Amino acid sequence: MFNAETQVRVRYGETDQMGVVYYGNYASYYEVARVECIRALGLSYRALEEEGFMMPVLENHSKYLGPAKYDELLTIKVSIREKPKVRITFYCDIFNEKNELINEGRTILVFIDKNTRKPCKIPTQMETLLSRYFDE
Amino acid sequence: MFNAETQVRVRYGETDQMGVVYYGNYASYYEVARVECIRALGLSYRALEEEGFMMPVLENHSKYLGPAKYDELLTIKVSIREKPKVRITFYCDIFNEKNELINEGRTILVFIDKNTRKPCKIPTQMETLLSRYFDE
Amino acid sequence: MFNAETQVRVRYGETDQMGVVYYGNYASYYEVARVECIRALGLSYRALEEEGFMMPVLENHSKYLGPAKYDELLTIKVSIREKPKVRITFYCDIFNEKNELINEGRTILVFIDKNTRKPCKIPTQMETLLSRYFDE
Amino acid sequence: MFNAETQVRVRYGETDQMGVVYYGNYASYYEVARVECIRALGLSYRALEEEGFMMPVLENHSKYLGPAKYDELLTIKVSIREKPKVRITFYCDIFNEKNELINEGRTILVFIDKNTRKPCKIPTQMETLLSRYFDE
Repeated sequence: MFNAETQVRVRYGETDQMGVVYYGNYASYYEVARVECIRALGLSYRALEEEGFMMPVLENHSKYLGPAKYDELLTIKVSIREKPKVRITFYCDIFNEKNELINEGRTILVFIDKNTRKPCKIPTQMETLLSRYFDE
Repeated sequence: MFNAETQVRVRYGETDQMGVVYYGNYASYYEVARVECIRALGLSYRALEEEGFMMPVLENHSKYLGPAKYDELLTIKVSIREKPKVRITFYCDIFNEKNELINEGRTILVFIDKNTRKPCKIPTQMETLLSRYFDE
Repeated sequence: MFNAETQVRVRYGETDQMGVVYYGNYASYYEVARVECIRALGLSYRALEEEGFMMPVLENHSKYLGPAKYDELLTIKVSIREKPKVRITFYCDIFNEKNELINEGRTILVFIDKNTRKPCKIPTQMETLLSRYFDE
Repeated sequence: MFNAETQVRVRYGETDQMGVVYYGNYASYYEVARVECIRALGLSYRALEEEGFMMPVLENHSKYLGPAKYDELLTIKVSIREKPKVRITFYCDIFNEKNELINEGRTILVFIDKNTRKPCKIPTQMETLLSRYFDE
């Protein structure tokens, strides 16, 4: 299991007239968390793309347990719990400033070879870096 | 079961550098579909809010089966399959211009009384309008 | 002068906690108006891109004269007032359902050759279609 | 003159299929810069709203001098150059990672009393904090 943590501050434009973060904007928070998770591992998603990999999303599952308010500094705990092969799943737990769990996200992505546009194995470098976090 | 259909045209700002619609923007398409579904039923979500109801999202589940491209006119088939009580679930199937199913969404919302901020029963008017589509 | 008109319905996610459309979302409405303006002329922005042109934005100027509310059907009157050469300016006037002018936008774009990534002349086809609307 | 500086990292969903940040998303960056500018002054925009003030945008002017790329850490220099009364203008200069100026924004907001919904004078506390930065 590999864990990382990041923070995002709620922007005004991310709220809606209910006075809380619009449900569609959590996807963007998960994305920030995934990118920082990959960076915490020692890689860069931008570099992975430049090296010929893409990671489109296959599935996303969100549970909205409580509201996120404007200007709140949210903490996102992100984890990779299963050793990825062709697919990789990121779990996000989002906490508000009172440390209450307000959102759970689970996002499944697939590794794609940019040239063939076909699914491919996880990039070797990423597999190596992740291997120490998973028992064989 | 109650069915409705609506269309959205993909905006440039909804694509990302992968050249297709960003995964987070489908939530906005589902929202358009829900609102038009409620309108097709003979109601208005705006009016429901003005009458003191809110419908925050509790869960959202998305499957990304294929890409949506810039300027495509997407067709969204939306349905209410279970008779709603305190919660209501909308199912969205999104089709591209070739009539291929590219996205499946399932969104669970809860009826909230704006004054008490507590869950409440489905508004009577909505229940009555929906009742003809569901066997007792 | 070339004029066109289009409509957009305000989405929930486009409002913010002030209860009206977030100022940053008008750019997306202008984009819809530009695209429909080009379509009204007999062209498609998507096709222009596929033929090797890009039209990045150089400047945008917005005046917010009144609020746009959730679910309102806005009417956008868009016009090309000066004969474009390497640059093209779109003027947008946005009206609410009471036909009040609530927003003015002026957006300057430049034609770019996708291969050279340099500014270029307006595509010939577009110039020809526009020429009848401008006195020499 | 009051100056502040903040940073934003470009999110994937903020890019479009041109491979750079969509022109409409800069408004959100300016908003982050304004909020952090107000925080650097010793206030909180969230608190101002809670105390009964709103600051809707009246005008926004943007110049796009160069592209912002995915994952870039942008630096925003924001300044209040004229002593605000009923209106306040924020100037934003956005720099990429090579320290090149890529975007200029000028946003005019008005102070509104939440109760009367009418324009009002700048909140006293804000005026006091700003006064030391402006010669009489």
